[in-house]
Amino acid sequence: MTTTHTKTISPRQQVAPAGPEFSRIVLGLWRLGDWKMTPQQRVSFLEQALALGITTVDQADIYGNYLSETLLGEALALAPHLRRQLQFVSKCGIKLVSDQRPSHGIQHYDTSTAHIIASAEQSLRAMQIEQLDLLLIHRPDPLMHADDMAEAFRQLQASGKVKHFGVSNFTTAQFDLLNSRFPLVTNQIELSLLHMQPLLDGSLDQCQRLRIAPMIWSALGGGQLMLPANEQTEQGQRVSLALQRIAGELDVSPSVVALAWILKHPASPMVLTGSGRIAAVAEAVQATGVQLSREQWFALWSASAGKNVD
Amino acid sequence: MTTTHTKTISPRQQVAPAGPEFSRIVLGLWRLGDWKMTPQQRVSFLEQALALGITTVDQADIYGNYLSETLLGEALALAPHLRRQLQFVSKCGIKLVSDQRPSHGIQHYDTSTAHIIASAEQSLRAMQIEQLDLLLIHRPDPLMHADDMAEAFRQLQASGKVKHFGVSNFTTAQFDLLNSRFPLVTNQIELSLLHMQPLLDGSLDQCQRLRIAPMIWSALGGGQLMLPANEQTEQGQRVSLALQRIAGELDVSPSVVALAWILKHPASPMVLTGSGRIAAVAEAVQATGVQLSREQWFALWSASAGKNVD
Amino acid sequence: MTTTHTKTISPRQQVAPAGPEFSRIVLGLWRLGDWKMTPQQRVSFLEQALALGITTVDQADIYGNYLSETLLGEALALAPHLRRQLQFVSKCGIKLVSDQRPSHGIQHYDTSTAHIIASAEQSLRAMQIEQLDLLLIHRPDPLMHADDMAEAFRQLQASGKVKHFGVSNFTTAQFDLLNSRFPLVTNQIELSLLHMQPLLDGSLDQCQRLRIAPMIWSALGGGQLMLPANEQTEQGQRVSLALQRIAGELDVSPSVVALAWILKHPASPMVLTGSGRIAAVAEAVQATGVQLSREQWFALWSASAGKNVD
Repeated sequence: MTTTHTKTISPRQQVAPAGPEFSRIVLGLWRLGDWKMTPQQRVSFLEQALALGITTVDQADIYGNYLSETLLGEALALAPHLRRQLQFVSKCGIKLVSDQRPSHGIQHYDTSTAHIIASAEQSLRAMQIEQLDLLLIHRPDPLMHADDMAEAFRQLQASGKVKHFGVSNFTTAQFDLLNSRFPLVTNQIELSLLHMQPLLDGSLDQCQRLRIAPMIWSALGGGQLMLPANEQTEQGQRVSLALQRIAGELDVSPSVVALAWILKHPASPMVLTGSGRIAAVAEAVQATGVQLSREQWFALWSASAGKNVD
Repeated sequence: MTTTHTKTISPRQQVAPAGPEFSRIVLGLWRLGDWKMTPQQRVSFLEQALALGITTVDQADIYGNYLSETLLGEALALAPHLRRQLQFVSKCGIKLVSDQRPSHGIQHYDTSTAHIIASAEQSLRAMQIEQLDLLLIHRPDPLMHADDMAEAFRQLQASGKVKHFGVSNFTTAQFDLLNSRFPLVTNQIELSLLHMQPLLDGSLDQCQRLRIAPMIWSALGGGQLMLPANEQTEQGQRVSLALQRIAGELDVSPSVVALAWILKHPASPMVLTGSGRIAAVAEAVQATGVQLSREQWFALWSASAGKNVD
Repeated sequence: MTTTHTKTISPRQQVAPAGPEFSRIVLGLWRLGDWKMTPQQRVSFLEQALALGITTVDQADIYGNYLSETLLGEALALAPHLRRQLQFVSKCGIKLVSDQRPSHGIQHYDTSTAHIIASAEQSLRAMQIEQLDLLLIHRPDPLMHADDMAEAFRQLQASGKVKHFGVSNFTTAQFDLLNSRFPLVTNQIELSLLHMQPLLDGSLDQCQRLRIAPMIWSALGGGQLMLPANEQTEQGQRVSLALQRIAGELDVSPSVVALAWILKHPASPMVLTGSGRIAAVAEAVQATGVQLSREQWFALWSASAGKNVD
């Protein structure tokens, strides 16, 4: 990573025609609890992210065994001015077996009106904020009753508790169903050079058609792309080699290239970070300033697919 | 099965916004010929079903080697008053190689205008009735000409011979095609704890989106779920164990639980029975009164999938 | 092939409601370069095709290592009157590694506004014509930016350089995406008795629903269907046997039967030829006059699938 690039600021974009405007890079707080930060360190982390132009943070009720939102809330209580500078995304719909939720007997989904509302309200309390900018249904519940879910969305919107609604990990048919009852602004999905399926299964086509920007999780393949070669699959080795080559051409790190590969997609994806190291977060922001050529993009595609395009 | 439950009456429901109202449990007469009933026994069977609130019967031209509709017709001739109390579903589009149809040289589909009309008229004659409440295209014919089929539907509707139209075993794309030419009121599909594919392939999402209630065949996995453990697959064994556990909790039979699992789906499926034993039919009706909890529903899902939800 | 049949003339058909009218059989010039024809022989070949009612020729920028369009252009320069009698289809979007395009470092796709326009203009120059009747996007580019592509289409249409637009090898989701921005008139896809996937994957359902006639490439399975039995797969052997039997019944060649099998589909496909022998082209035209019965069609389907329909 060269010093010239580190000053890049994350651009912002409209998530959907009637959706919010988010920073292109979104601070993922899935593992906030693992980072063992003091409340003040969490404040610093958020301030450093803001300095990089990252205004949007991604949470879920269940992250960190139901505790990650509380850790964020402690930081916001210490630094209340951050609330106005940040946009908050959270999720609901999964019920984990957890000491924090002793009533749950088996891991399952709950997308009932009552649970969606209760979960959103609990997220607000835990994060010590008054409004979510975006609430996502975390998984496609096979029992999802679209009218009941839309009813929960309407109530949460009417009470000012949640501004916008979306989903995560939905197939196109599942998205069409819920979107027919309530306008969704995003689908948060997995996409990386080790998981190119959304390029083919219609997810990204649907997003682009509806002018809805997807949010991308596991953009670095859960970190696998950064493992030593001998701990990687054949596919991982091919992709890593291609990343290194192009990283050399562009004088950036392989991670930056891997994220720039996602950011080039015409559906205009937003990318979630996963790290608690601000340097890793800065690399994601840096990627927003890197333009891969089509040849570079397809060299990476081909390394992942193990063949050239037809 | 406890005596308390056996008095449940099948509820009724709207099949589609402009569709008929059917009983939630539908009497499947696929194997009527196998039951070796006298015409009077068939009348009694229908009367017992009616006493359980089952007003809808499901037939097809080809059932029982093209003879099942005739067996039903004999009963209706003996008890003409039943005609006004029952709603009749039949199907067409498959041409079996059969001594009853000596002109057929190979099993194939025929969804031509002429065949659909001729088959519906033959079903009316065989069943000795004047109108079908619902005619289904039995299989997605790769040669289906949607305009020709819609023309058959219009003629059958105009002549009063068939009130509503639907399909069976159609993919979502096939449904969209025919539905673009003529409004379909249902898709009759296979769904059970041994066949959960429609939860993922978009079929049930499409039904719910269009507010069309699916009809479910093979809801007990073709009876496999009720086999002794040593005759079952690993999946079947897992599901059977879970069914037995929950059956114990609810003081009903495992079959009732398996059907309640289907009935809980938000697409509001109607369930076809398959048995000639009125006790088995009564169990299906009983299932309409059983509410599984979400945890029970997902315990069964997990037993079938061999894993918890993500 | 019997002499009686050889006088068949290819019928014409509307490709889409607002699309062009093409000959049902389309002269595929993919391998024009392999045929080693003199310019005058190319003129003769086109004239013989026209005498068979074939008015539409299919090209692509990349055919014959970027040279096939030029070979056609040389013929049209010799016989300028043919331009008014023919309709020209070409394609763009693939960038091959080629001595003709030394700047390409890796095989990739390019569906940028600039490349689509430049490629269409180059096709016009190479073919020495002033207008394309139809320009297709050759492959579904994972980087396709639908608005940018629509912009290219609008500019090419406004300048009179291209009349209509379509795609090739697109999934239904990819088609929906681009069609949402600009009305497409066709999807050119592979279909044959050795490749029946489009019967199931929604492609042909979508075409029929939108009243868009697909164009079919590799209709004879890339010639595999005509190999000696011992060079064929088991599937190929089954299909060949069935083709021979039905060819005998109808007194035509197996190739004619294989093409009639495609032409019977209700999506009203147009079939591309692949041969430089006018006799082979005439067989394709002959197929337009052959009506397979449903039993014959399904006998071929069953031979390909290795089973009867359900």
